[in-house]
Amino acid sequence: MTDEPRLTTLSLRPTALTAAYRRGDIDPVDVVEEVLRRMAARGNDRVWVQTVEPALLRAQAVALRDRRADIDNLPLYGLPFGVKDNVDVAGMPTTCGCAGFGRYPSSSATAVQLALDAGALFVGKQTLDQFATGLNGTRAVGGHCLNVFDPSVIPGGSSSGSGVAVAAGLVSFSLGSDTGGSGRVPAAMNNIVGLRPTMGLVSSRGLVYNNPQFDCIPVFAHGVEDAYQVLEVIAAVDGLDPLSRTDADQIALDAPPVKHFRFAIPDRLAWFGDIQSPECFAQAVQRLQSMGGELCEIDFSTFIEAGSLIFDSAFVAERAASYGEVLDRLPEALVPPVASILRRARDYTAIDAFRAQYRLRELRHQLAKQLAGLDVVVTPTVARPFRVEELLASPIERNAEVGYYTYGVGPLDLCALALPAALRPDGLPFGISLVGRAGADGWLRSLGGRFEAATAVPPGAPGTGA
Amino acid sequence: MTDEPRLTTLSLRPTALTAAYRRGDIDPVDVVEEVLRRMAARGNDRVWVQTVEPALLRAQAVALRDRRADIDNLPLYGLPFGVKDNVDVAGMPTTCGCAGFGRYPSSSATAVQLALDAGALFVGKQTLDQFATGLNGTRAVGGHCLNVFDPSVIPGGSSSGSGVAVAAGLVSFSLGSDTGGSGRVPAAMNNIVGLRPTMGLVSSRGLVYNNPQFDCIPVFAHGVEDAYQVLEVIAAVDGLDPLSRTDADQIALDAPPVKHFRFAIPDRLAWFGDIQSPECFAQAVQRLQSMGGELCEIDFSTFIEAGSLIFDSAFVAERAASYGEVLDRLPEALVPPVASILRRARDYTAIDAFRAQYRLRELRHQLAKQLAGLDVVVTPTVARPFRVEELLASPIERNAEVGYYTYGVGPLDLCALALPAALRPDGLPFGISLVGRAGADGWLRSLGGRFEAATAVPPGAPGTGA
Repeated sequence: MTDEPRLTTLSLRPTALTAAYRRGDIDPVDVVEEVLRRMAARGNDRVWVQTVEPALLRAQAVALRDRRADIDNLPLYGLPFGVKDNVDVAGMPTTCGCAGFGRYPSSSATAVQLALDAGALFVGKQTLDQFATGLNGTRAVGGHCLNVFDPSVIPGGSSSGSGVAVAAGLVSFSLGSDTGGSGRVPAAMNNIVGLRPTMGLVSSRGLVYNNPQFDCIPVFAHGVEDAYQVLEVIAAVDGLDPLSRTDADQIALDAPPVKHFRFAIPDRLAWFGDIQSPECFAQAVQRLQSMGGELCEIDFSTFIEAGSLIFDSAFVAERAASYGEVLDRLPEALVPPVASILRRARDYTAIDAFRAQYRLRELRHQLAKQLAGLDVVVTPTVARPFRVEELLASPIERNAEVGYYTYGVGPLDLCALALPAALRPDGLPFGISLVGRAGADGWLRSLGGRFEAATAVPPGAPGTGA
Repeated sequence: MTDEPRLTTLSLRPTALTAAYRRGDIDPVDVVEEVLRRMAARGNDRVWVQTVEPALLRAQAVALRDRRADIDNLPLYGLPFGVKDNVDVAGMPTTCGCAGFGRYPSSSATAVQLALDAGALFVGKQTLDQFATGLNGTRAVGGHCLNVFDPSVIPGGSSSGSGVAVAAGLVSFSLGSDTGGSGRVPAAMNNIVGLRPTMGLVSSRGLVYNNPQFDCIPVFAHGVEDAYQVLEVIAAVDGLDPLSRTDADQIALDAPPVKHFRFAIPDRLAWFGDIQSPECFAQAVQRLQSMGGELCEIDFSTFIEAGSLIFDSAFVAERAASYGEVLDRLPEALVPPVASILRRARDYTAIDAFRAQYRLRELRHQLAKQLAGLDVVVTPTVARPFRVEELLASPIERNAEVGYYTYGVGPLDLCALALPAALRPDGLPFGISLVGRAGADGWLRSLGGRFEAATAVPPGAPGTGA
């Protein structure tokens, strides 16, 4: 069965691998061997916090091979995937990148379980900025994993391992988390797709929360269809999750081809000193116009203020409500930004907490008016490739710049599709985000698919052309 | 035009008075004179905090008489109404029963303005338990208004003046406020209808908030159709109110006749020592069964715990966020329960505030499961007629008993229709509440109308048979 040269160039993309399985070109045992080979070849790449024992993974592949006849009922049949280590997988501790945190879940997160039930092969837990606090990746304890384009560039965070694992061709997809951009920034930094679904569409039960109302489980994959193949499986009403939308199964996950549409770009674009991204963004905007898009601007201050609530308001107390005990129990184990935020969290009063929520409600209301007549907001995902050394020198200020475009989306109850838009003259990737109203997930797929086809950027690590 | 004997027995009920106007039997000037006569006859009944100058009211009636030809576009044409004094009416201070509070609104609350625009005649601002904190009426500063059946019985609160004004035949309807029962308890105590609409269906802009998420503006009127005639006017999407439902105009306000339905009563009925109410409630239940209702029970602990969040959790901090400055500025002006709650409010942390909200979200989620297959929950509105002296002796404990059945409705995001069910052997009124899911307002009208017709309790003060 094994065919080494073919395996070496094997695409793990869900769409491609599913097609190969259906044709009978390959089976899950071959795929697992290739995944193990690729992981071994990279050595300790700091992508993984914990991995499944190879023997166990092989046994699961064999079991799955025996279920080949049932492939039509297993939409993620034989797709290897990883899970960010702040999302529960039964049988492994959930560490959030904090060794002593030690949550030992007896059941997997609903989204993980749905993927497993659909035939996906769980490979391991992926590194992250500790407690998913950060957008750059350098806040991983014990060293960060490397950007697949340039090791001096941040991998993006907080789902750094999840993004890199996909871009490096180690898995078909990853499940991460996204509060203020963690499901989109690593996608932009590594030239893949990051899909942040509408809040409550995918159950977040089993995620260690930062802000339950803004936290969701995004999908990382190479292409738009790849990501939506996964979303179709994990999007479901979850009777165990009070945050699950009761109408989750009524949200369309696809839409007819988008022909004419109105899109807005931020009225205040920030590039933080870069001169290549603006040109790439302008080209993306022109492409959208040539696809039938009518361009306008949106007052981006609504996004900026909503985004600032995540760290600069009483909303930080939600982090303390979720895992604040670590500040007393494991003070030595915390990276400085996490410790500092948890300390600040204690100073806010209940009055502050309610006022922050009133302000957010007003901002959502204001945004609803701004979105009247608009189909989508289009932004750069990240302004530019930030360097690791910049983040180490100014960890708070630079991190805030990384999130300039992404922070507001969750608080404003929007959904977003981050996807590659260009390779810059310096060879680094540039991505855009399509940002829609809650429930616009299917519409974003339609537009995103057209954009992706028109752009034709080979996704993933350079030269892999996955 | 005037016909004194006929005016003396004139019904101000919206349905009846509208019909009389349409027939040309009467005009707004006659009605205003009769209202002024009735108010004068009662002297200082403590129902009103402020009233419109008679000359001004007469001038408005004359202006309205001149618009008689436009009556089809004025669904509340010539209906005198009052407004609880925690809801803004332009030109009068909003006092909340606290003399120095001094909010001088430049515009009326949206609901008030819609009523005025529909031809209703504003008569005055009505007394309340200070800052709408209480369900009994005795927390009105300067003495409470009297129950229309028995002055030793509480008028109910916090919308005491609003309920009594309708029951005593002084106005066609009142607009009150309801956080934990303030729009239903005075209805039950005075034998009228109290309609608590779905949150966000009626704009609450212009209301002094206790808990914005639970606060709404209810309608007091004699009968079910009377109340819904008003609701049809004040239910509207309000672009100025972030709490307004954007689908407010898609919620049906009527429904086909309800034939077969499943209703639940609380599994733990509490009567607080009374022996007449249980029998009245049993008769109401039998009546509902004979109307096609299938009876079952619901675990009422969900309602009790949700209701307890209003005063026994960090949610009290919302009161401090709304008007807590009075604790420093006007400490002498506050009734003890308000001062005590505002003091407690300062001790809660932001972490407490978020945890209280998480618990509420869980309770709503739990309730959604309990409501599966059910059309409506039916409860007594108030367990029994509480005496003024009981409330004065144990103001906190007895007040909590008054709200046993009503507290949970707002926090659980339900709507409710409180209506008369019986006159007890002792001659005092007993009322029930039909409690439905958010959006069930029209369905409640249908069932409530059938129940009201079958019950045939003459609404309002005894002997008025309005």
